[in-house]
Amino acid sequence: MKSNYKDDSLAVHTDLYQINMVESYWADGMHERKSIFEVYFRNMPFGNGYAVFAGLERVLDYLKEFRFTESDLLYLKEQVGYEEDFLNYLKTVRFTGDVYSVVEGELVFANEPLMRIEAPLAEAQLIETAILNIVNFQTLIATKASRIKQVVKDEVVMEFGTRRAQEMDAAIWGARASVVGGLEATSNVRAGKLFGIPVAGTHAHSMVQAYKSEYEAFHSYARRHKDCVFLVDTYNTLKIGVPTAIRVAKELGDKINFQGIRLDSGDIAFLSKEARRMLDEAGFHDAKIVVSNDLDEYTILNLKAQGACVDTWGIGTKLITAYDQPALGAVYKIVSIENREGMMEDTIKISSTSEKVTTPGEKNVYRIINRKTGKAEGDYITMKDEDPQAEKTLKMFHPVHTYLSKYVSNFDAVNLHKHVVKQGEVIYDNPTLEEMRAYGKENLNLLWDEYKRSLNPEEYPVDLSQKCWDNKMRNIEEVNQLVHAYKEE
Amino acid sequence: MKSNYKDDSLAVHTDLYQINMVESYWADGMHERKSIFEVYFRNMPFGNGYAVFAGLERVLDYLKEFRFTESDLLYLKEQVGYEEDFLNYLKTVRFTGDVYSVVEGELVFANEPLMRIEAPLAEAQLIETAILNIVNFQTLIATKASRIKQVVKDEVVMEFGTRRAQEMDAAIWGARASVVGGLEATSNVRAGKLFGIPVAGTHAHSMVQAYKSEYEAFHSYARRHKDCVFLVDTYNTLKIGVPTAIRVAKELGDKINFQGIRLDSGDIAFLSKEARRMLDEAGFHDAKIVVSNDLDEYTILNLKAQGACVDTWGIGTKLITAYDQPALGAVYKIVSIENREGMMEDTIKISSTSEKVTTPGEKNVYRIINRKTGKAEGDYITMKDEDPQAEKTLKMFHPVHTYLSKYVSNFDAVNLHKHVVKQGEVIYDNPTLEEMRAYGKENLNLLWDEYKRSLNPEEYPVDLSQKCWDNKMRNIEEVNQLVHAYKEE
Repeated sequence: MKSNYKDDSLAVHTDLYQINMVESYWADGMHERKSIFEVYFRNMPFGNGYAVFAGLERVLDYLKEFRFTESDLLYLKEQVGYEEDFLNYLKTVRFTGDVYSVVEGELVFANEPLMRIEAPLAEAQLIETAILNIVNFQTLIATKASRIKQVVKDEVVMEFGTRRAQEMDAAIWGARASVVGGLEATSNVRAGKLFGIPVAGTHAHSMVQAYKSEYEAFHSYARRHKDCVFLVDTYNTLKIGVPTAIRVAKELGDKINFQGIRLDSGDIAFLSKEARRMLDEAGFHDAKIVVSNDLDEYTILNLKAQGACVDTWGIGTKLITAYDQPALGAVYKIVSIENREGMMEDTIKISSTSEKVTTPGEKNVYRIINRKTGKAEGDYITMKDEDPQAEKTLKMFHPVHTYLSKYVSNFDAVNLHKHVVKQGEVIYDNPTLEEMRAYGKENLNLLWDEYKRSLNPEEYPVDLSQKCWDNKMRNIEEVNQLVHAYKEE
Repeated sequence: MKSNYKDDSLAVHTDLYQINMVESYWADGMHERKSIFEVYFRNMPFGNGYAVFAGLERVLDYLKEFRFTESDLLYLKEQVGYEEDFLNYLKTVRFTGDVYSVVEGELVFANEPLMRIEAPLAEAQLIETAILNIVNFQTLIATKASRIKQVVKDEVVMEFGTRRAQEMDAAIWGARASVVGGLEATSNVRAGKLFGIPVAGTHAHSMVQAYKSEYEAFHSYARRHKDCVFLVDTYNTLKIGVPTAIRVAKELGDKINFQGIRLDSGDIAFLSKEARRMLDEAGFHDAKIVVSNDLDEYTILNLKAQGACVDTWGIGTKLITAYDQPALGAVYKIVSIENREGMMEDTIKISSTSEKVTTPGEKNVYRIINRKTGKAEGDYITMKDEDPQAEKTLKMFHPVHTYLSKYVSNFDAVNLHKHVVKQGEVIYDNPTLEEMRAYGKENLNLLWDEYKRSLNPEEYPVDLSQKCWDNKMRNIEEVNQLVHAYKEE
């Protein structure tokens, strides 16, 4: 198990079975048949009322660069055993299809298509694994960040999780996704460099230990750094840490910008209130209290309920790993494929697990916004040729409990899918991260509060149009007939 | 938030506060003081009785390459605001220290030093974040893989999790760590290419859907692939899927190597037993049953208890994200530092959370193996100048409940730390992945079964020598005195 193929390429960042399937498609002359795949997830992460889509920019970069390198092909030949004729074909593969996608920062929900890939079958298959790998993680972290931001409200929240992230990519892309989800800064310098995210941080316990004294360490820090936040819990927060921070701040006066203190252990509720009192008594009313220590939306809610005096939250492990649900579970499913005669035919996957049954056909998803309230009534999935805006009144019914329904009129129907790749060419200009964050924040205003509660929110409606529903039922019935009629030879 | 620094370098894969501290050390002429840091974790992941160390090879590669690039320095100057004099120093920084480490595949336990870094203070500080990022994740996944392997015993286990991994690095380094922990293969082609791991996979539901028939799809697959595993659950496993697999296998006879079938949904216990019966009745006694579908050690244990007929397990989400505990929480703590006079002085971090109190001083960790039983009696942490092998009898006592103790004689004391980096030069030859996996497997024989139970195992002893304990108590007392004597100015 030593490898001689050390150069790296993302075309092989895929499951082996994708390449196996493509080999068969190619051998059977089916590789160029047009196919339609959809990306969606089946359950809301963290039991949240909404999710925040992220990852598109990286997906687009990946598609642009997609090609098998010489070393990829050599590896596939020597170690996996593919034959020359097929490898010659693989060498020519680029992504030439179309992609429709919701944009980063968009609020999204379970069981609606987030991306629609329309491409030759072989290409669509080869890119599945990487797209899911990217979108699953970034959407998960953006959603977790947004949950935290909902609880925090107006204070600053920083991402501090690199050391506990699941390897290096998770650290930097997770920092980026955190910003899409609403956060303000990261501690990871590389994420700052690559994505332009503001970086934040002061010093660690080891610095106090190196100087063997908080007094020395704080003074040393202040000599080179105008903006000072002192970490006060190395030995004893209230007896030494906070008093020393105050002492140094007084001694240095205007020579520094004493921004405040950081607490990283102990009972944050108690310590922050005591520290606030001490800072105020010393006249440092503007000094901020920064806290960290295994925080998440649940602990923040509890600390706030107890009146903790916190101005800035540093969130590490629980955010960067999405600790309470570390995978989103988005899937990539074929919904339509060109047949021998060149016509598109819908296709379905049946499962005894009802949520695993796919919804066939080329579809759009619309956000139905009530013009009177300005709030979203729900999302509405249609067949591609439907135009809900042309309807005077929409009947929206629950896609499982179909007797639950409502009629909506006087609405705007906003198509959530943007055409982002056209015949292999990226035609979408990525907004800046600030713009993505602002977009997500603005969109939260579309949701009633009951969808934004962090515990047990209401279920936001994601409904199928009647046509879409009928099409699904027809496809299911066809498979049922097939199963019923099947005779062993 | 757009960045102009698109080229990538791992020197900045660190928390900003590390660089801030280094600036102060450098300004105060302390940056070259010798310091000793240790890597360890405080709690056993998944409540397991042991962990499997992994990540060293990547850490060594990182240290070899460590340097700030031009674009790193430009970013730090333009966007973070460091001054020229300090940046000129940063430009010269390489890792010149020594590293002692346990090797990959080694069984390790909470609160023992896994790595010891002895280096100039600035260098030791700059590498902290990346080392933790690497070791935390790879050790976590290797441990999870080993837990799964303990339950599975002799069947083959494959890593299938890329699409749910926390971004791309997690997918490939997680696949690698899974092998260190005992697994046999991965579905990720890139991991196969980079690390020489055997890759595995057949086809997906989408292929059956593309051909609109399992019969057509299986035949197509068989035309290009000698080894055939057919996925049988696209429409109806027992009514169509398995009968069609059998039919195709009979039709093709010796033209293919019919390896078996794969189940990816439904009740695996029931379906696998029925499928086994059908395969056996058709004469395919050697055909294997491969299963996947959100499996982990708990579901595997239950499926086995119900007599599921499974030959190969494909494990995805729950392994690659370490779903039930997605972070290890290893820390990097300073234990000793050179003082003004050039002497090493121990240092301690005190916390009201007792497990966060560090153990000061330069230390070794020995595995104490009973010569009579061949089993480990526990791990024994000593000050560096101690030699437990020179003792006739060791008193091993619990580091918290110190009245719990035992005397051990007739033992081998094996130093777990290898000298892997000497004055900045990597002097350790990484074994192959197979060797790491074999080493881990062999070492499991050192443990009594009670430490290997997946639920509620016994706690393996990790004890401090008397000297080490006394040193820790002395350091704590010194801080207590300091706190007691502290007077506000």
